[in-house]
Amino acid sequence: MDGNGAPRTERDGDTVRITMTRPARRNALSREHLAQLLAAVTAAGESDATGIVLAGEGPVFSAGHDFADVAGRPVTEVRSLLALCTELMGTLQSVPQVVIARVHALATAAGCQLVASCDLAVAAESAGFAAPGGKGGWFCHTPMVAIARNVGRKRAMELALTGDVIDARTALDWGLVNRVVPDDELDDAVADLMARATRGSRASKAWGKATMYAQLDRPERDAYGVAVEVMASASQLPGAREGMASFLEKRPAVWTD
Amino acid sequence: MDGNGAPRTERDGDTVRITMTRPARRNALSREHLAQLLAAVTAAGESDATGIVLAGEGPVFSAGHDFADVAGRPVTEVRSLLALCTELMGTLQSVPQVVIARVHALATAAGCQLVASCDLAVAAESAGFAAPGGKGGWFCHTPMVAIARNVGRKRAMELALTGDVIDARTALDWGLVNRVVPDDELDDAVADLMARATRGSRASKAWGKATMYAQLDRPERDAYGVAVEVMASASQLPGAREGMASFLEKRPAVWTD
Amino acid sequence: MDGNGAPRTERDGDTVRITMTRPARRNALSREHLAQLLAAVTAAGESDATGIVLAGEGPVFSAGHDFADVAGRPVTEVRSLLALCTELMGTLQSVPQVVIARVHALATAAGCQLVASCDLAVAAESAGFAAPGGKGGWFCHTPMVAIARNVGRKRAMELALTGDVIDARTALDWGLVNRVVPDDELDDAVADLMARATRGSRASKAWGKATMYAQLDRPERDAYGVAVEVMASASQLPGAREGMASFLEKRPAVWTD
Repeated sequence: MDGNGAPRTERDGDTVRITMTRPARRNALSREHLAQLLAAVTAAGESDATGIVLAGEGPVFSAGHDFADVAGRPVTEVRSLLALCTELMGTLQSVPQVVIARVHALATAAGCQLVASCDLAVAAESAGFAAPGGKGGWFCHTPMVAIARNVGRKRAMELALTGDVIDARTALDWGLVNRVVPDDELDDAVADLMARATRGSRASKAWGKATMYAQLDRPERDAYGVAVEVMASASQLPGAREGMASFLEKRPAVWTD
Repeated sequence: MDGNGAPRTERDGDTVRITMTRPARRNALSREHLAQLLAAVTAAGESDATGIVLAGEGPVFSAGHDFADVAGRPVTEVRSLLALCTELMGTLQSVPQVVIARVHALATAAGCQLVASCDLAVAAESAGFAAPGGKGGWFCHTPMVAIARNVGRKRAMELALTGDVIDARTALDWGLVNRVVPDDELDDAVADLMARATRGSRASKAWGKATMYAQLDRPERDAYGVAVEVMASASQLPGAREGMASFLEKRPAVWTD
Repeated sequence: MDGNGAPRTERDGDTVRITMTRPARRNALSREHLAQLLAAVTAAGESDATGIVLAGEGPVFSAGHDFADVAGRPVTEVRSLLALCTELMGTLQSVPQVVIARVHALATAAGCQLVASCDLAVAAESAGFAAPGGKGGWFCHTPMVAIARNVGRKRAMELALTGDVIDARTALDWGLVNRVVPDDELDDAVADLMARATRGSRASKAWGKATMYAQLDRPERDAYGVAVEVMASASQLPGAREGMASFLEKRPAVWTD
């Protein structure tokens, strides 16, 4: 899958790293690139890996949509492009693995949406984040769906309306990323967070992630309706049984699922 | 519209400034004042301005409802007053302009709700924010609808239950305002943020703002349903076409809508 | 109610303090303990107290569910346990009193959910917070319903997936607690916040709290639909009438409800 600048997929232990490799295009999310990323994330999701790292090569993490795919195209074509992009964002959430965005540089528009859509995000100090459609002519309508669900309302409106770049420390303060580290410590920080986030039973984690996204958007009472049923059922699975037995017997757990 | 302390409307370039001018009444939102503010915001909304600044004169930004309008009045009258107030808050969000609250001093109850309901807010260091109904006998039920959608849940409960004033730095930390500046730099900061927030195509910005409010409260999947359709359609508008063409042709954009 | 380590209920002025007293079990929420806590909170809720403090004795605030109640039990039994736990969390929100969590030490899993479900929370500097199911085999599905509604999405995912402990300062920064104080100032800080949060008319406060929870999860327009009706009706109650009359007459209010 490395031809034509397709994302590079590498397996390292229990983690799959998917790297956008079109630095000359600022890792723009062309239709082809979106389809390749979706295929790569889907394949990683079906693997036995426990974690996925989404990374980019070159001076920019991702600059978002490629205007060459949009300019002058009919509405049906643009709609199908955005539907494909939305499917990618949803797949980052629906795969059973823990997905961490490794943000080494600027992430804008749908590139910032990628960061917002990953479960977790680690940024280098020189990273930046923006929804620049707000200072142009199209507006970052779909990126703001994901971004606004990570930051507060006034901050979402500021990003959307001004199009200005916020730095990594501000993104941390606003809750868009989980860690900010010096640039040369980025891979270590990603590996450390991934190790912490993938401990325990793989099956339990996968069900936990799915249930989080199922409950987050619901009214609290409905959310409990979902979570109680899942948690009761999950108590019968090997992971839960082993977790509780090992705790009660004061011995290390051995995960089989 | 300057009689009887009606809000003063001033046009400065592409911005309309609407100033509450009842300092002796702490800019209380009497029924008359609410109706005048609604008329002023509606008129500005129908103008060709790109931004609206909401400001106040005197020692207080706004102290909220005027109890003289409520005390001893029948429920139908109070309900219609609150409906009028809610209409004003909704109109701040539904006008196509970017609306910035210029908060020079204390904003309490429905005055704090005004700040929470504007798209963006800039506060002077000596500003403060409170929902004081919580320490009285009526409770800030409707102000908390807007305020709670800007700050976290525990912070919303604290404001609502204690009625205590938070200072401008705390409001910034909690996401209720976008900027805090020394008092004598307030107008410059508002002008700077307005200039940043009104760049680009006016039509694009208006559709962007409307779509933000349409999607913010929805579950993520429903929000994408709205945003994808809008963004696909928006790609066909002059602003989007010019934005993408100018970017691809590496020339400055010329906005016609 | 002090037999078998049942929670201790103490009345101090207008405040009821409910203390978990099973330090040797790290105040684990066994079925018996949950039922006792629910009874204690319900009884306090029916009393004429204006505030409830939820506290714990010993080295841990509460370690959450007692695995001895879950390990090897059939799904129907686990489901009823989780339903009981959810009823307790809902009751903390539905009682008319202001409920403050007094967090002197580690609060994990359903123990952290208790903190998240109280209206307000004050933490000692040595307190900590975690959802450790994420590093085990069961996952903190139901605790995350409450915790995620206090902190941002990326932070909720980090807590849920890593199971790591955050310290009190981080919990304050993320909005999970309202105050962090040196350990030996905890009771003073709780008393101070309770005094601030219980000022004014008791009936007004109770209706205010109920309306907050009724509106928080709704889309903004629906939330206003609730809040306008409540606020209009509330204007007719003795508390509101006295609050407005005393303000207009520039005299201290005398609350009768």
